[in-house]
Amino acid sequence: MFQSFEVTARPEQGPPRLAALRTELEREGLDGFLIPRADAHQGEYVAPRDERLAWLTGFTGSAGFCAALRDVAGVFIDGRYRTQVKAQVAAEFTPVPWPDVSLSSWLKEQLPNGGKVGFDPWLHAAGQISEARKALRGSGIELVRSDNLVDRVWEDQPDPPMNPVKIHPVEFAGEPAVDKIARLAEKLQKAGHSAAVITLPDSIMWLLNIRGSDISYNPVAHGFAILHADGRVDLFMAATKLAGMKGHLGPKVTQYEPGDFLGVVQTLDGTVQVDPGTVPQIVADALDQRMVEGGDPCALPKACKNAAEIAGSAEAHLRDAAAVVETLCWLDKQTPGDLTETHVVTRLEENRRKDNALQDISFDTIAGTGPNGAIMHYRVTEETDSTLESGHLLVLDSGGQYLDGTTDITRTIAIGEVGDEEKACFTRVLKGMIAMSMLRWPVGLAGRDIEAIARMPLWLAGQDFNHGVGHGVGAYLSVHEGPQRLSRVSHVPLEPGMILSNEPGYYREGAFGIRIENLLVVQEAISLPGGDDERAMLCWRTLTFVPVDRRLIVVDMLTRDERAWLNAYHRDVAEKIRPRLGEEAQLWLDAATAPI
Amino acid sequence: MFQSFEVTARPEQGPPRLAALRTELEREGLDGFLIPRADAHQGEYVAPRDERLAWLTGFTGSAGFCAALRDVAGVFIDGRYRTQVKAQVAAEFTPVPWPDVSLSSWLKEQLPNGGKVGFDPWLHAAGQISEARKALRGSGIELVRSDNLVDRVWEDQPDPPMNPVKIHPVEFAGEPAVDKIARLAEKLQKAGHSAAVITLPDSIMWLLNIRGSDISYNPVAHGFAILHADGRVDLFMAATKLAGMKGHLGPKVTQYEPGDFLGVVQTLDGTVQVDPGTVPQIVADALDQRMVEGGDPCALPKACKNAAEIAGSAEAHLRDAAAVVETLCWLDKQTPGDLTETHVVTRLEENRRKDNALQDISFDTIAGTGPNGAIMHYRVTEETDSTLESGHLLVLDSGGQYLDGTTDITRTIAIGEVGDEEKACFTRVLKGMIAMSMLRWPVGLAGRDIEAIARMPLWLAGQDFNHGVGHGVGAYLSVHEGPQRLSRVSHVPLEPGMILSNEPGYYREGAFGIRIENLLVVQEAISLPGGDDERAMLCWRTLTFVPVDRRLIVVDMLTRDERAWLNAYHRDVAEKIRPRLGEEAQLWLDAATAPI
Repeated sequence: MFQSFEVTARPEQGPPRLAALRTELEREGLDGFLIPRADAHQGEYVAPRDERLAWLTGFTGSAGFCAALRDVAGVFIDGRYRTQVKAQVAAEFTPVPWPDVSLSSWLKEQLPNGGKVGFDPWLHAAGQISEARKALRGSGIELVRSDNLVDRVWEDQPDPPMNPVKIHPVEFAGEPAVDKIARLAEKLQKAGHSAAVITLPDSIMWLLNIRGSDISYNPVAHGFAILHADGRVDLFMAATKLAGMKGHLGPKVTQYEPGDFLGVVQTLDGTVQVDPGTVPQIVADALDQRMVEGGDPCALPKACKNAAEIAGSAEAHLRDAAAVVETLCWLDKQTPGDLTETHVVTRLEENRRKDNALQDISFDTIAGTGPNGAIMHYRVTEETDSTLESGHLLVLDSGGQYLDGTTDITRTIAIGEVGDEEKACFTRVLKGMIAMSMLRWPVGLAGRDIEAIARMPLWLAGQDFNHGVGHGVGAYLSVHEGPQRLSRVSHVPLEPGMILSNEPGYYREGAFGIRIENLLVVQEAISLPGGDDERAMLCWRTLTFVPVDRRLIVVDMLTRDERAWLNAYHRDVAEKIRPRLGEEAQLWLDAATAPI
Repeated sequence: MFQSFEVTARPEQGPPRLAALRTELEREGLDGFLIPRADAHQGEYVAPRDERLAWLTGFTGSAGFCAALRDVAGVFIDGRYRTQVKAQVAAEFTPVPWPDVSLSSWLKEQLPNGGKVGFDPWLHAAGQISEARKALRGSGIELVRSDNLVDRVWEDQPDPPMNPVKIHPVEFAGEPAVDKIARLAEKLQKAGHSAAVITLPDSIMWLLNIRGSDISYNPVAHGFAILHADGRVDLFMAATKLAGMKGHLGPKVTQYEPGDFLGVVQTLDGTVQVDPGTVPQIVADALDQRMVEGGDPCALPKACKNAAEIAGSAEAHLRDAAAVVETLCWLDKQTPGDLTETHVVTRLEENRRKDNALQDISFDTIAGTGPNGAIMHYRVTEETDSTLESGHLLVLDSGGQYLDGTTDITRTIAIGEVGDEEKACFTRVLKGMIAMSMLRWPVGLAGRDIEAIARMPLWLAGQDFNHGVGHGVGAYLSVHEGPQRLSRVSHVPLEPGMILSNEPGYYREGAFGIRIENLLVVQEAISLPGGDDERAMLCWRTLTFVPVDRRLIVVDMLTRDERAWLNAYHRDVAEKIRPRLGEEAQLWLDAATAPI
């Protein structure tokens, strides 16, 4: 269960696999085939069976896709992965900067009128396909449903996961599943729809108060569900996974095998609500005129954590912070040059596991030292494992899954003596992180409306970073949870109870990386004397309590308010975390949280 | 030509007019009629003939509409006008907070299934009607084209304006009209459309390098135009307005009478590009299947000012600033209690007129003292004219139209001794205004992505203001120009050459108002040492140079960077404006721009 440092994909494996795929293309009379990172559940993490993109191309990032044509294969990757992709794919693959270059515009350049590109209709969301088809209109290029051609040539493709499901106790969930089902069914009925199709595993887990372990790091089980407006739920999940769950699921939930899903969808009467952003094209095709675009009914209620979930997350964060602080204390006592990244990852995981509450880490720990820190989603392997040298910044981004909550924290640590340029950049990132933490804002704003706040100090220095400021986080669920985001693409108003990360960064390719991340929960702001009476405002409550490396701060660059915030934060860290530490770490924490 | 302080609409005039309108409703078998503020050109200013909303309801704001039903008449007004509307309309009219309450949701509450609401298809944009119809779907309520029922009952309705058009010299326009026409026609051809319909007067003025005076404050003439992909332009404007313009307009431009417009639209072949946000519903109906939504082709090129327009605007701002500074100097020498708002308005206009370059003011000067300052779009009348008392803040928002540019500036002035609460609020507004002025940001962002920057200092104190941070401004054209905006509703990326206002404010109803406004032009930012090489960024160049009232600043609330910005700004003000002032004002300016 410990993080593996195995090299899971090698560039040289790609070309023969691509050649095999192209033989299939020819056989099918297709000019290309799309290989998404996604599985049928559009999650960020996929089972080994669904690692088609990595298997084919070598690219292991958490987002992206390949369009394999007969003579060119584009690997579409976003800003976070532009550095990583270069190291992972062979020359036979062409990285395409996405979304700057869209699939449709790229296909139009590469293919003649009449080109046919196949796709597996389980693996692409309906919205994605309809958007691409719209953009291809007039080009004569078609996207056509096809068998999965990668599955045909992948001889030792693993089986689907079949792990048992557990009850998620109501003391953590905060609301019985029957109440959630009744509440959502009523809403569906009011909207005049007969049912909603749910294909996101975390939505199903949340709705039924269950958890699974079908994929790494996310406590979910794969399956599909149909919520009926009359309050029944059809759950399409292998019976073997659900052994002993009948009592918990109750009479309103009927179990079916996953293979029955499409058949039951076809029998639905009336209008059926789906989220076009995640529902597989094959389901949309089956529903056809009965489909109504309306979102996953669980998405928003799941995002807005109730009191029990917030209390649980807060407690999980304190427990997790102690493990991180123990690790930072240990790290500080090592000599630069003696350690590599994997040592840090292993030690951190050991410290997290000392507390038996840990269920899993919440994602592969990112421990990038020196130039590796500039690779935003770096995963250290035996091959890349680098020594922590004096002068390095170490980006350490990690998290844990606990029954009461999910954590995600990044700290950037000075190794030995660090240069002034690194410190100046670090201080700008910190200023942005503090500005977001201090923010109050009027009800109704979305991530897009406020995320500039965390970037401004970098912008003023001609700098920026190519990822969002933050993502939603689940309650013992996905560490990346929608729909809430602190991002330019997010138009979903922030609401009380939403947990988000606040993680500005800075990345200088080939040199160093910086990221500072706390998790925050949205809450109603109490009114201030002199504030507008009629104006409802929201603010953050911080969940993460781990010191920010004071050695990297150029104090003179902070305003009085920023210094005050940091000192108050460090006072809270000391108060909350000190009692959970060993003696050595207590002394270390005292120094690390001293006022600046 | 001086600003009038006449009371143009009286609440008591509304009810009998509404009664007359309702008689027409009955005659037509309608359950309601929509009365927009807009004319057929969807501009902010309308001719006296088109002041239907004010004539009927008494409300004189620059945006809003009335839905007059048989037993209730809703006046829909946005956040800027919530205070003003209460003072202007009779009890027979019900203010509706819009857009929080949409027309469709209000109609659904007020009308039974089968309700029919008439509208004049010249006065409503196609996008507006289709959106409302979509939202009414399923309710049984219909929006139906109708004669204008207000025009029927408005006996002394003025005639349409018929003022002569002038040439706008290329030294100010920066590009000959033939070149603009050729450039836009080529783009249209590339997009595969046969023509574009242009219904915005400022677009037509910009395209043909002409100016008019059909409405107050905006140098435009009413008319319509069709730009053909082959480079011809049909101009629908009364021949009497265009006397002597034939040589300037040249052989590519054909004049028609406005009454011919719809007929010519009906004869167009191929696809025709229109802006659904502004094209009248009647034009959309006439085009039907040939209509392609694509925006007004002039909108973006007009918004991105060329070098001549920027140079002209800069010069106009220096000239205008001298008039404002002379006025502020004069104001400071008066005794509180001796002056009223109209004195300030008149003196300011006199000072602007001393320079013969002034063509017109660019909007009714807002001079709101004490509680009047909290009415965002206050226009002083003989009835509301208030004395400037010690302790008041005076909000002074004004602008001029010059051949070389359009100005718009707001300063908030201390009258006598001002309270600490007012000063603290003023300083927060100033901090927001400075933050926006200092900003650099990556290419591609829209107003929505950055406007929080100017609000944050208020938010942190539980305060905010109910208007956008800024609007686009034309070059000797509309003082409110689209599509560029610093607003939560603006998704148009900011581009070099766009002129925008930066005008955060704060308004405490019944107590005081604050607004500080400079005009800024977007420019490419030079790269900074240590900045990201590959990252193209934009920044502002300030056009407005008038001191900010130092007496209202709580210096201790400013950061070092904010103080530095303000002192540098005041140094620039002194350097640029002092040579244009009389001796007395020079001395005043020296004190007003001394470092803090």
